[in-house]
Amino acid sequence: MSERIKHIGIFTSGGDSPGMNAALHGAAKAALANGMRISGVSRGYEGMIDGDFISLNEKDLQRTVHKGGTILKTARSDRFRKEEGRKAALKNLEKKGIDALIAIGGDGTFRGMLAFSELCTLPFIGIPGTIDNDLAGTDYTLGFDTAVNTAIENIDKIRDTAESHNRVFLVEVMGRDSGYIAIHSGLGTGADGILIPESSEDFNRLLEKIRHYHSQEELIVIVSEGDELGVGPVASKIREVNPSVDLRISILGHVQRGGHPSAFDRMLGIRLGVASVKALLEGQKNVMAGIVNNSLTLTPFEKVVKQHQVDAELQELLTLFYLK
Amino acid sequence: MSERIKHIGIFTSGGDSPGMNAALHGAAKAALANGMRISGVSRGYEGMIDGDFISLNEKDLQRTVHKGGTILKTARSDRFRKEEGRKAALKNLEKKGIDALIAIGGDGTFRGMLAFSELCTLPFIGIPGTIDNDLAGTDYTLGFDTAVNTAIENIDKIRDTAESHNRVFLVEVMGRDSGYIAIHSGLGTGADGILIPESSEDFNRLLEKIRHYHSQEELIVIVSEGDELGVGPVASKIREVNPSVDLRISILGHVQRGGHPSAFDRMLGIRLGVASVKALLEGQKNVMAGIVNNSLTLTPFEKVVKQHQVDAELQELLTLFYLK
Amino acid sequence: MSERIKHIGIFTSGGDSPGMNAALHGAAKAALANGMRISGVSRGYEGMIDGDFISLNEKDLQRTVHKGGTILKTARSDRFRKEEGRKAALKNLEKKGIDALIAIGGDGTFRGMLAFSELCTLPFIGIPGTIDNDLAGTDYTLGFDTAVNTAIENIDKIRDTAESHNRVFLVEVMGRDSGYIAIHSGLGTGADGILIPESSEDFNRLLEKIRHYHSQEELIVIVSEGDELGVGPVASKIREVNPSVDLRISILGHVQRGGHPSAFDRMLGIRLGVASVKALLEGQKNVMAGIVNNSLTLTPFEKVVKQHQVDAELQELLTLFYLK
Amino acid sequence: MSERIKHIGIFTSGGDSPGMNAALHGAAKAALANGMRISGVSRGYEGMIDGDFISLNEKDLQRTVHKGGTILKTARSDRFRKEEGRKAALKNLEKKGIDALIAIGGDGTFRGMLAFSELCTLPFIGIPGTIDNDLAGTDYTLGFDTAVNTAIENIDKIRDTAESHNRVFLVEVMGRDSGYIAIHSGLGTGADGILIPESSEDFNRLLEKIRHYHSQEELIVIVSEGDELGVGPVASKIREVNPSVDLRISILGHVQRGGHPSAFDRMLGIRLGVASVKALLEGQKNVMAGIVNNSLTLTPFEKVVKQHQVDAELQELLTLFYLK
Repeated sequence: MSERIKHIGIFTSGGDSPGMNAALHGAAKAALANGMRISGVSRGYEGMIDGDFISLNEKDLQRTVHKGGTILKTARSDRFRKEEGRKAALKNLEKKGIDALIAIGGDGTFRGMLAFSELCTLPFIGIPGTIDNDLAGTDYTLGFDTAVNTAIENIDKIRDTAESHNRVFLVEVMGRDSGYIAIHSGLGTGADGILIPESSEDFNRLLEKIRHYHSQEELIVIVSEGDELGVGPVASKIREVNPSVDLRISILGHVQRGGHPSAFDRMLGIRLGVASVKALLEGQKNVMAGIVNNSLTLTPFEKVVKQHQVDAELQELLTLFYLK
Repeated sequence: MSERIKHIGIFTSGGDSPGMNAALHGAAKAALANGMRISGVSRGYEGMIDGDFISLNEKDLQRTVHKGGTILKTARSDRFRKEEGRKAALKNLEKKGIDALIAIGGDGTFRGMLAFSELCTLPFIGIPGTIDNDLAGTDYTLGFDTAVNTAIENIDKIRDTAESHNRVFLVEVMGRDSGYIAIHSGLGTGADGILIPESSEDFNRLLEKIRHYHSQEELIVIVSEGDELGVGPVASKIREVNPSVDLRISILGHVQRGGHPSAFDRMLGIRLGVASVKALLEGQKNVMAGIVNNSLTLTPFEKVVKQHQVDAELQELLTLFYLK
Repeated sequence: MSERIKHIGIFTSGGDSPGMNAALHGAAKAALANGMRISGVSRGYEGMIDGDFISLNEKDLQRTVHKGGTILKTARSDRFRKEEGRKAALKNLEKKGIDALIAIGGDGTFRGMLAFSELCTLPFIGIPGTIDNDLAGTDYTLGFDTAVNTAIENIDKIRDTAESHNRVFLVEVMGRDSGYIAIHSGLGTGADGILIPESSEDFNRLLEKIRHYHSQEELIVIVSEGDELGVGPVASKIREVNPSVDLRISILGHVQRGGHPSAFDRMLGIRLGVASVKALLEGQKNVMAGIVNNSLTLTPFEKVVKQHQVDAELQELLTLFYLK
Repeated sequence: MSERIKHIGIFTSGGDSPGMNAALHGAAKAALANGMRISGVSRGYEGMIDGDFISLNEKDLQRTVHKGGTILKTARSDRFRKEEGRKAALKNLEKKGIDALIAIGGDGTFRGMLAFSELCTLPFIGIPGTIDNDLAGTDYTLGFDTAVNTAIENIDKIRDTAESHNRVFLVEVMGRDSGYIAIHSGLGTGADGILIPESSEDFNRLLEKIRHYHSQEELIVIVSEGDELGVGPVASKIREVNPSVDLRISILGHVQRGGHPSAFDRMLGIRLGVASVKALLEGQKNVMAGIVNNSLTLTPFEKVVKQHQVDAELQELLTLFYLK
């Protein structure tokens, strides 16, 4: 069945994340080595609707493995949510002769593919590209390791200032409803507190620490953007509990999405890119390629839901470092 | 006259900036080579009032040249603003046998020294330590080059995301009332607009660009924190002028103050540290050591005022890149 | 049985690797939370023989998680190879009241522990600290991820020059007899060839490429230091095959061992540090804590041998990228 | 006279250096703003002989300011040394309608222009692009600041390992016959010794230090590649003087030429690019644009010779830090 695939379309969708270009490189290498053609679709579903294709050259892809962002560009597409949009997209794919699709994106992207699959029989494979590391079906999403590295480099810098002044610093990191970036960057920088959406106990502990805080000491607290309180209310509460605190707030923001991918994300991108082509060769469809316990794994799109539970080992570390 | 100096006290005061440890290293090396002792004062004027001295070891200083922040810690001191505080500080200096002071800090620090000089005859030398590059008497303040490097590295990352999405990004950089960090980091990253406190014409130009902005393009605009409008109102105005813009805001914040000093700031710190001891040896007092047109220069504290004018060559570049 | 452990000794041995300080932090945190004392031994077995202990303070460890190298220092010890040395070490441990040992090092370190265990009944736990990633019993050794990140950052820089000149660059990376660093850094930078000790076929492929090389193109080839030929003979052979090649050699060298640990290595160090204390609490002895398929795993020292086989998935990637 | 310039050709020649793309951006901006056209010549004099021109787009240049290397590529040209080559180049320039040339390169490049000027009356302007900082007529050459930053980042990493092992490290940095990179990177990292081509006294001092070296200490010595001895013989001599030394050698090599330009080099490139167009507008010819004492300066090609004297202030620092 799979031998009928002659021309793969590949695109990036949703928020960009570092490592997407490595995934393109891996997929293209595997496609070409297996005698298939591969074309890029610009700006995700938007470009599919507009018929905006990009030819992918092997040497160019090899030379952009190290680049942040996505050379295919990405976008969110309201038009694709409507059947009209999906029909236009299908027509363009057929005209171009594309008979399989690989999408690099998040769970929203894969839901889009599921909706699309009601319209056509093209096999679809997904690659998890998001810095939030919040998807079932993979231990690591593409871009997460880079985002954590960017966060720790910046927190290392903030510590210089915190230590020089004996200040309390609240540093907000990304991760949406998932505390993974906060946990990894907090433990990795020796932070004095970590506030994550998945737990509320930690805030009480922090306030206790703040109550007895004296000015001869610096404190660095990592706050996940998804924490129910948010960095503003946390700051207010801290000032209420101990008005003598010299408090500063830093929101790391969008830098966490960009930058050259880390070594881990470059390799992860290549692995998942190759795996997605192999999945197509094996006749798979509507599955996401991921890494679970160090092995390549395919998970049906229906099961790729957001997952907000911190795993048992991490939970134990958090308890050890911050709740004892 | 200068041969009476036997024991120099050195301290950092006000906001910390990268390169301060290099200045300590340079001053200590020069002091010891000239047969003087040198002691650190902890937490600026606060430590002076508390009699909190730190002995400085040559090898330790050599091994901290690369560190951000200040190993002496720094603080702002309300107590030193009162004569009572200054008298306590003087008593501690006398008890310790310190007969000259070197301060690394900003104009507030030097004003403190001027007030202090009414009380005693100790010679005081200042070293300009601030990332804002806003002091008369030196072409570069200690920490400015590092702050700009941190800004451009982060803006380079943001561009990955901006280019991937065809978004408009407003990036706020530090610099207080001075646009230097904004100008250097904006030109250095090929930004599409730079908003600085020293000019208002640039904002009108930007709005014009925004008015004709179409979504197939990314735009990066650097906003100085001292710009009269601030990044929030700028964003509102942009959305008003062109509601279709996909706008994101990023405030780089405190990371710009920290981190390992750049090569330039390490060398600048060493040069100014050595120069300040030489100034003491030459019998100078109440002057700041700086670099003007590549030469070591001493400027009386009275003349070390904040300076907010962009020099003629930079102004010409701004006009060429953003107002033509 | 395990409740008798009251005082853990911990040390680093052999070559240093980034993440060792994070492992110290993790182990200390777990030891203290479980009511045990923990002391550092300076310079590995050397310090044990000299009775050179270092008290470990929790806050200090928290503030050195981000540092490269090891705050305990490390050394190779000829004296410990002799029974006399081991007896002196044991006497010092007994005098200090240390009743369990955690060692961070390589297979040589663990063999030392095995020899030591003939002399005493103290439980010993090992943590794999080496950039070479060449030990059975763990998927990742401490420092490997940082070394690969350092390698790719430097290779990214070399590519700027290679592309500007249309040159051929041979870049030698570390890894001793293991090609892991070469493979990861080569795939991660889009290298045109990778030469590793585990394979010889790749060199023939490369020479074929070189034979048809024309000067309008740059080529980057990663050579593992353990490759039987070495970078010098490889260069000679290339010049022989195609004398028109503008060839340059770069040996990345010791920078790969240093630098702030990556996010991954910080977390790995903390995980393994905590795991080693847990192993002691569970009554384990003479085992190495590692991560296999994302789970903490204990492997008897006898089985922790050097392992030079590239795993099947990596081998497949190498074939796909360089042998097809 | 100058109004006749309608079409500038610009090229990079000799070794590449970070900041060259910023200079292209600056020159293009200034040319276009003054109503002139500007075209790139590929691969320096080689591309000129081959008639290989590249059209320069303003937006593209804005988006490559941060890139290392040169988007125009560079080469050394034997053919241009012969009159035949120069005649072919001139013919191509005339055919293309180019009536002025800007060259970014070293003294060899400018000598090529002087030879070329015997053949034609086109005005030539030079921009000093070399990491060696060894040219009369400018205080800083383009790429020097980046190279020093790359060197100090790598030396900072090596120090982690040196400190962990109490080793002696010899680190060779670039700079050809000039010790500037060695001095700046050595002072900036607190090195224990600096060996430069301009001085021999320093080696005797180092050997004295080594003679009394005991193993409880690390030593880092920076060796300029142009030092008459070279890193190999220096190592032999050290081992001879004190065989107990645990010595390691690291040659930083080509990474110093690449990488994203530093903030300083980006601004320097833009300034010199703009200045070179202004020089053409003013009717200048056969001069190099440089920065002397913080002011834009034009120096006739004849006077742009290699300059190997360390300036007085640096010499004083070297004496203070290493010869006292």
